[in-house]
Amino acid sequence: MAFTPAELDYLGSQRLGRLATVGADGVVQANPVGFVVEDGGTIVIGGYRMGASRKFRNVAATGRAALVVDDVKSLDPWQVRGIEIRGRAEAATDPEPPVPGTTTEVIRIHPETVFTWGVEPGEESMTRRRED
Amino acid sequence: MAFTPAELDYLGSQRLGRLATVGADGVVQANPVGFVVEDGGTIVIGGYRMGASRKFRNVAATGRAALVVDDVKSLDPWQVRGIEIRGRAEAATDPEPPVPGTTTEVIRIHPETVFTWGVEPGEESMTRRRED
Repeated sequence: MAFTPAELDYLGSQRLGRLATVGADGVVQANPVGFVVEDGGTIVIGGYRMGASRKFRNVAATGRAALVVDDVKSLDPWQVRGIEIRGRAEAATDPEPPVPGTTTEVIRIHPETVFTWGVEPGEESMTRRRED
Repeated sequence: MAFTPAELDYLGSQRLGRLATVGADGVVQANPVGFVVEDGGTIVIGGYRMGASRKFRNVAATGRAALVVDDVKSLDPWQVRGIEIRGRAEAATDPEPPVPGTTTEVIRIHPETVFTWGVEPGEESMTRRRED
């Protein structure tokens, strides 16, 4: 799935996303993470202790994740914007870390469904599209 | 589980949290949400279309959720802070909405595990505690 230019600009402007994962035991968790977008639209999430983290084990066990990147654009009037990405996920070990100083263990999300709100110029309501 | 005064102050200062849920089909999602903390430490999440949302159905089906409330305190030096709450969750219909104008359908999280970072005065690293 390719992101639009406006979506790529927005994703590049935000320092943190929040990652949702679930373990084999059904316990759900939510964590702030740094991320990069690879060519082709895959999301790569690294970290300083990624390989030892429960989120990494969760993805290894269940193969699913979602990342939401969003912020409050304006308090008055109340305007929010963001992108939610749901997809298949893998707990991988890459040859090089995605960002210098992070580990080579990464979570990679292959988007299946993307929701956006307030990101495209003039966009007022939620949009949705699905990869096939 | 009771939150500390510093945790309650921090939760009250933030407009949005990000909610992680999972459906019966295993699909994970992450959504920005408003929230309030009830006396006793239960988290209540309302919304304008909560009853019709997939997150509401997810919680009804799996009974689990996590909420992370976090922000970047300082870009330089890089300082982050936040609270992650994992727990049992229920999709409930209350007599009154948690916030005027929202629906009476709510997601209620009963915390089981809470992680905090950068919230307590002088706190530098992750802390963790578990409810019994």
